[in-house]
Amino acid sequence: MMKSLGAKTLIYPAPVLVVGTYDKAGKPNVMTASWGGICCSQPPCVTVSLRKVTYSHANIVERGAFTISIPCEKYVRETDYFGLVTGRTTDKFAGAKLTPVKSKLVDAPYVKEFPLVLECKLVHVADLGLHTQFVGEVIDAKADESIIGEDGAIDIKRLKPLVFTPDTQDYYGIGTYKGKVFSAGKEI
Amino acid sequence: MMKSLGAKTLIYPAPVLVVGTYDKAGKPNVMTASWGGICCSQPPCVTVSLRKVTYSHANIVERGAFTISIPCEKYVRETDYFGLVTGRTTDKFAGAKLTPVKSKLVDAPYVKEFPLVLECKLVHVADLGLHTQFVGEVIDAKADESIIGEDGAIDIKRLKPLVFTPDTQDYYGIGTYKGKVFSAGKEI
Repeated sequence: MMKSLGAKTLIYPAPVLVVGTYDKAGKPNVMTASWGGICCSQPPCVTVSLRKVTYSHANIVERGAFTISIPCEKYVRETDYFGLVTGRTTDKFAGAKLTPVKSKLVDAPYVKEFPLVLECKLVHVADLGLHTQFVGEVIDAKADESIIGEDGAIDIKRLKPLVFTPDTQDYYGIGTYKGKVFSAGKEI
Repeated sequence: MMKSLGAKTLIYPAPVLVVGTYDKAGKPNVMTASWGGICCSQPPCVTVSLRKVTYSHANIVERGAFTISIPCEKYVRETDYFGLVTGRTTDKFAGAKLTPVKSKLVDAPYVKEFPLVLECKLVHVADLGLHTQFVGEVIDAKADESIIGEDGAIDIKRLKPLVFTPDTQDYYGIGTYKGKVFSAGKEI
């Protein structure tokens, strides 16, 4: 029996993205966001939506660049902290005892300790309401060698990314293998 | 040691979204897409990006509406099948032995057997390159009672959504609880 839940954004899974930016003065900042994902293969683009009141919003507009670091399970506390405090009054990197790395490709920092990072140049902005949607072209993706499998591709079991649940607002991990894309459906 | 992987859209986890549309003649169609997610809280909006060559792309432009059904693990074969064949020449619902339901709120069908659906009105279109990004305002979300927990919210452990891995192109399930959002970071 289907039950109406009202006009709610209930997409599962939502990712946990740590957005890295510089402010006007060059101070590195990070914030955690779950409204985002991949949006184009060629050119390779990803999107993240931020509320206008956030410090990171102004930073992206100012600098025209951002990074997305994908945190792993081990850093769930630090990741949550990045969403709890504001970069206006807090040095979040110092607070979390994590290390900002200046990207050589875009005008934004990323989190050294996180295993996967996308360096993005801002290419499109859409004011959708409470959130502004930023689209960034991926200039490079960098991964820690520890999360790369024997086939040279990222192994999600080694990456251990976090999942965000929109309705209950919890963090979850990734489960087990369920099938191969463009293959499982061939049985039909 | 961080290793450059080139300009690739490596966001983890990516969702598995089944997009429902009607064509000009009123035939219901579905396709599976993983480039998408939540993009605004107020008004509640979600986004999905489709290649211009897909049948669903033309349908969304024509009808100004789409649904997103979230498949559960049980339907991994059917979900994959929806991404393997084209609605131009195939009745995918009949092929997968699943049931189209006409939304009463938007001009699009959804998959009766899937446990969660968002009914969306098209509000924004961005041509990003290979993919066109469609933003839909969520008019209603509907969930099967079986996935709603005792607190009245969707329980991801009951929903059992699929995860897509961009680099290796596999389906995974959801793992275990890792912490509470806006709470885990308070220890720092």
